[in-house]
Amino acid sequence: MSEIKEQAKKCGVLGCTGMVGQRFLTLLSRHPSFKVFKIGASSRSAGKPYEKACKWKLSEALDANISKLVVSECKPENFQGCDIIFSGLDSDVAGEIESSFRSAGFAVFSNAKNYRMDPSVPLVVPLVNADHIDSVANQKARYGGYIVTNANCSTTGLVLPLKALMDAFGVLKSISVVTLQAISGAGYPGVPSLDIIDNVVPFIDGEEEKIETETRKILGTFDGVQFLDAPGTNVSAHCNRVPVLDGHLSCISVSFETKSKPSIAEISRAFEKYVPLPCEMECYSAPSSSIRVLEGVDRPQPRLDRYAENGFAVTVGRVRKDTVFDVRFVALVHNTILGAAGSSILNAEIAERKGLL
Amino acid sequence: MSEIKEQAKKCGVLGCTGMVGQRFLTLLSRHPSFKVFKIGASSRSAGKPYEKACKWKLSEALDANISKLVVSECKPENFQGCDIIFSGLDSDVAGEIESSFRSAGFAVFSNAKNYRMDPSVPLVVPLVNADHIDSVANQKARYGGYIVTNANCSTTGLVLPLKALMDAFGVLKSISVVTLQAISGAGYPGVPSLDIIDNVVPFIDGEEEKIETETRKILGTFDGVQFLDAPGTNVSAHCNRVPVLDGHLSCISVSFETKSKPSIAEISRAFEKYVPLPCEMECYSAPSSSIRVLEGVDRPQPRLDRYAENGFAVTVGRVRKDTVFDVRFVALVHNTILGAAGSSILNAEIAERKGLL
Amino acid sequence: MSEIKEQAKKCGVLGCTGMVGQRFLTLLSRHPSFKVFKIGASSRSAGKPYEKACKWKLSEALDANISKLVVSECKPENFQGCDIIFSGLDSDVAGEIESSFRSAGFAVFSNAKNYRMDPSVPLVVPLVNADHIDSVANQKARYGGYIVTNANCSTTGLVLPLKALMDAFGVLKSISVVTLQAISGAGYPGVPSLDIIDNVVPFIDGEEEKIETETRKILGTFDGVQFLDAPGTNVSAHCNRVPVLDGHLSCISVSFETKSKPSIAEISRAFEKYVPLPCEMECYSAPSSSIRVLEGVDRPQPRLDRYAENGFAVTVGRVRKDTVFDVRFVALVHNTILGAAGSSILNAEIAERKGLL
Amino acid sequence: MSEIKEQAKKCGVLGCTGMVGQRFLTLLSRHPSFKVFKIGASSRSAGKPYEKACKWKLSEALDANISKLVVSECKPENFQGCDIIFSGLDSDVAGEIESSFRSAGFAVFSNAKNYRMDPSVPLVVPLVNADHIDSVANQKARYGGYIVTNANCSTTGLVLPLKALMDAFGVLKSISVVTLQAISGAGYPGVPSLDIIDNVVPFIDGEEEKIETETRKILGTFDGVQFLDAPGTNVSAHCNRVPVLDGHLSCISVSFETKSKPSIAEISRAFEKYVPLPCEMECYSAPSSSIRVLEGVDRPQPRLDRYAENGFAVTVGRVRKDTVFDVRFVALVHNTILGAAGSSILNAEIAERKGLL
Repeated sequence: MSEIKEQAKKCGVLGCTGMVGQRFLTLLSRHPSFKVFKIGASSRSAGKPYEKACKWKLSEALDANISKLVVSECKPENFQGCDIIFSGLDSDVAGEIESSFRSAGFAVFSNAKNYRMDPSVPLVVPLVNADHIDSVANQKARYGGYIVTNANCSTTGLVLPLKALMDAFGVLKSISVVTLQAISGAGYPGVPSLDIIDNVVPFIDGEEEKIETETRKILGTFDGVQFLDAPGTNVSAHCNRVPVLDGHLSCISVSFETKSKPSIAEISRAFEKYVPLPCEMECYSAPSSSIRVLEGVDRPQPRLDRYAENGFAVTVGRVRKDTVFDVRFVALVHNTILGAAGSSILNAEIAERKGLL
Repeated sequence: MSEIKEQAKKCGVLGCTGMVGQRFLTLLSRHPSFKVFKIGASSRSAGKPYEKACKWKLSEALDANISKLVVSECKPENFQGCDIIFSGLDSDVAGEIESSFRSAGFAVFSNAKNYRMDPSVPLVVPLVNADHIDSVANQKARYGGYIVTNANCSTTGLVLPLKALMDAFGVLKSISVVTLQAISGAGYPGVPSLDIIDNVVPFIDGEEEKIETETRKILGTFDGVQFLDAPGTNVSAHCNRVPVLDGHLSCISVSFETKSKPSIAEISRAFEKYVPLPCEMECYSAPSSSIRVLEGVDRPQPRLDRYAENGFAVTVGRVRKDTVFDVRFVALVHNTILGAAGSSILNAEIAERKGLL
Repeated sequence: MSEIKEQAKKCGVLGCTGMVGQRFLTLLSRHPSFKVFKIGASSRSAGKPYEKACKWKLSEALDANISKLVVSECKPENFQGCDIIFSGLDSDVAGEIESSFRSAGFAVFSNAKNYRMDPSVPLVVPLVNADHIDSVANQKARYGGYIVTNANCSTTGLVLPLKALMDAFGVLKSISVVTLQAISGAGYPGVPSLDIIDNVVPFIDGEEEKIETETRKILGTFDGVQFLDAPGTNVSAHCNRVPVLDGHLSCISVSFETKSKPSIAEISRAFEKYVPLPCEMECYSAPSSSIRVLEGVDRPQPRLDRYAENGFAVTVGRVRKDTVFDVRFVALVHNTILGAAGSSILNAEIAERKGLL
Repeated sequence: MSEIKEQAKKCGVLGCTGMVGQRFLTLLSRHPSFKVFKIGASSRSAGKPYEKACKWKLSEALDANISKLVVSECKPENFQGCDIIFSGLDSDVAGEIESSFRSAGFAVFSNAKNYRMDPSVPLVVPLVNADHIDSVANQKARYGGYIVTNANCSTTGLVLPLKALMDAFGVLKSISVVTLQAISGAGYPGVPSLDIIDNVVPFIDGEEEKIETETRKILGTFDGVQFLDAPGTNVSAHCNRVPVLDGHLSCISVSFETKSKPSIAEISRAFEKYVPLPCEMECYSAPSSSIRVLEGVDRPQPRLDRYAENGFAVTVGRVRKDTVFDVRFVALVHNTILGAAGSSILNAEIAERKGLL
């Protein structure tokens, strides 16, 4: 692998000590053509070797080479030589820092929410709207570099099956989604254990709004100049935090605009046949099937199914007739892999294939 | 209290060793006018003192007098002298046993599902449709005794706020409910820990159907002869099991038929002002407010709110505009108190007030 | 109750918003002769009504009157008129604040660790060494007021059964204790959920040392001038955090110095027959039995047994021969009731009986 | 890999649907020289393809080829052609079935408890007493085939560090172990969730006895004829069930017989330098280090460390002076890998190297 790594793209990871940052490092440590080159965090961590700066919280042990890397402050001058910048920064600092990297000419792939709804920045769920990445030409012209954001973790688990339905059956008239979200989505220390053991919390600050607005941008189009929201896509979201480590589950109901309603079998087939661009392009991290329809009557379940396709697929189950909408089903996404770091990495892989790095 | 208890109604509890049976005994041990007189379970437990027959699973210690009672088989001849029969029997045996008690002239208040949809048996959520109890006259005439059922635990948490909305704003056109249900709802041993730690299970056998059908009967009317379903009440239910001990939470969205949509403030007021019959009648177990609207942005939560009004109220929170329906909110019910044993007891209290015992 | 409350001792509660503070308020709200009069917390909370200043985390709802009380800063001048000061302060501020209250002449009953090992301050587990409270005369002479501390929560669950054994069988030569401690012991936000779901943490900072040193002082004697450690009481402690809300469980093994080893039956009897001073004095909060020996082969268990005697007793089970020590057993204490706020309150009740308030 | 697999030993797995059976299949599916050939379970499962017969409970997806295998009844005639039989059978049936396979000439590697203490059967923790396997010559002579058992899961996590200490410092005089054991150790359905959420259970039937007796046999010697218990090895065990999915943690205290007590540094070094036979032999499943000493002050932790060395190592931490014993530390073992199926497989690898297959 060392030889391949010679040719590898050099990556900088901002916000490397957080939950998403840890996932970035784990995924990149196994990546054949991306290599962790620089890591950044707050001034509190800067100057320390990673293993001292970080409370490692994943079950997979960290790569020994990465654990020796010294953490820098998140300033462009500390990341010279990087081909790609991944950002797992908290939103309270991401805005300014990512902007400074873009101005310094870097290609920034960010999981932070700050620029998602920015009219000049693409919001890309790689298995859904990879073509929106083309819009970075406009940013490049203006700033030198560019930012590509990926979506909120729970949004990601929703838009993938929705896109498969849109492609097959046209406009989605109304969508109801109720999420049961894992604690890792709140970072570390995140959710206090006193709040979640023997409990669920029916509220996640800002999450319902993110799902409702991001979905329209992601399912919409880029016309060369601007992003246009998907027409008629009306989403109602209730969000809950549950005592699960990883994996956001959603109960989804959908109504189609078309009068000729598809059958349950047709809908399941639409999920299974859905092949997004990164799968066609054979990107390294692309799953062999991006939506996996599970047969078990009680699936998907976070503990059993979150690592399907190494965490890069959405699993779907219980596709059945709805009594108020047209169809209902359950979907699961690994919130820190496909729902966060994994999508950023896939976005960078797409950018590489498109010659945008 | 001993004096009051002299006058007390003598109660038999069938299925006394299960989770609902344990809750029956706990609630009755503190009841001022109902007294546990006989307890019944399967032949495996019969003949043993309760403390030997039962694996007690509640945090509240069992009343010492009850723990000495000897368990009988569930046959009418073993329950002579009882004024009231409460049934927490499993559905695989409840059908035949409850029928035999009815034929022997007993007033049976059952939490089992077997007779809920029977056209001659009332399905009564006491804080919703107490008037359906009047229908027992028909059963009495035919069988000598009668059965009054209460609803599925998650149905109970749904119909109470729905009824308040119907009373205030008329027909409910469509309803979406996604439940996050506690493990005690599955009885003991019930849900294996390997299935639910670090996990949620998006399926509970038969539960969605129960919610969808029971709701229509409960919100419907009794015309003196038969039960008529509520018109236009279209319910879509997704059910999930979560790692919570007690307390079923529901994310509920509702659309009204009326064109003049009520405001959020009006809806909250409708919840707060709702006063069902058992509260008017001042039944012993009736809550001081049957729907409590909580202020906290992240409430209700099972661990913090399930014992509101001693577990006899539904707590509601996050009443807000919906983007697909008219309004959405979160509701919580204690599944083994108001959602099971508590409703049976309240039903018996109502029957007593109505002179039906 | 209002009449009794007229005569009630007026209580100030410092650190009222924390987990121990919340427990103080809950216990005092039901107390017949102690009444919450003033409440104190950090300057961040000062000036707000309690319900706004505090994230309430107990399942029992807070008393409505207390929730309206306005929080003060923890300065003696804000607590004029109080007969008793209870402190649930964090140790980083407790030292200075408690000292200032003592100097201002107050009787301070503290759950903080700061003064526990101070040679002039009694460390009192009320069901073990209530007589050490007499030592406050020395503090009063020197400072005007006094501080009485109670022990660490896990120490409390250990010394109660140890004292019963010492009283019955003499010197304890060696003691091994391994604790499984609840998350509420770490306060709020305390233990992050990512650290404890599907996990245990075999380390609690400073806890093992506290158990090993506090035990010797508590089981020792006060000779009128100073506190003398219990002779020969050698304790080895391993401490673990487990995903339990309330209730510290301990696996305890003990060897006696005496050659004539007591039988298991004699040991169980020694637990059951143990009657400490507050029980003799009939203090309001004293349990009817301070050590309850449970029969079940798998008891005590935190969820089922932590509220025995309203959380004021230690439950013991599995008393059996040891293969390395003389005897082993399991003990459980409610860490925020008898293990914290409850012991402070009992200490104040003892002081009241002894005329020390 | 297909070529290697041509040469592979053909394996039969008895009890293939249970938790240990599932782990056998997962580990064998990745094994370079062992291949799953036949699978057996109860008559209820026999005749069905594995995917229909089994409720799969591991997060790792099952190998697709294995999931198509048809389950047989556990009779020797159904396992013709197998070179190795692995048994994950429940103890209520393992005795008779394993005996019948031995009589039919098979080499049986069993995780069941039935023959562990049998004077003719070796009880082998492969990283501790691999040499005991030589004893199978005696069984072969008598029965045609033989049984090799591995130890109870919690015993395995204990004897590995104990053996390292014995090798370095001689006889261990007394040992105290308190376990915090995962729910997967109880199989499926196993521990009801109502028993373990927000709870710990301080009792596991028969477990303390197993630890105390098995340890002496494992740390003892085989003299060519019989097994001799380790002299002076006195073990006291308390066992607890905790809400953890996988990974048994133990708090261990040890006293040495030698007067010249080793230092903490020497003890840590003894753990790290310990190299058991399968590591020397370079068995495929042998870990690169069999005892890993972790630096973190709060490690090992089940969720973070159970997969160290793919679950084939014991991790140790908090090595420190004891106040009653000589040294104390914390140890963790993956209960269904090294603590069960993994040890059986390692035992078979050793037998293969020794030419005993």
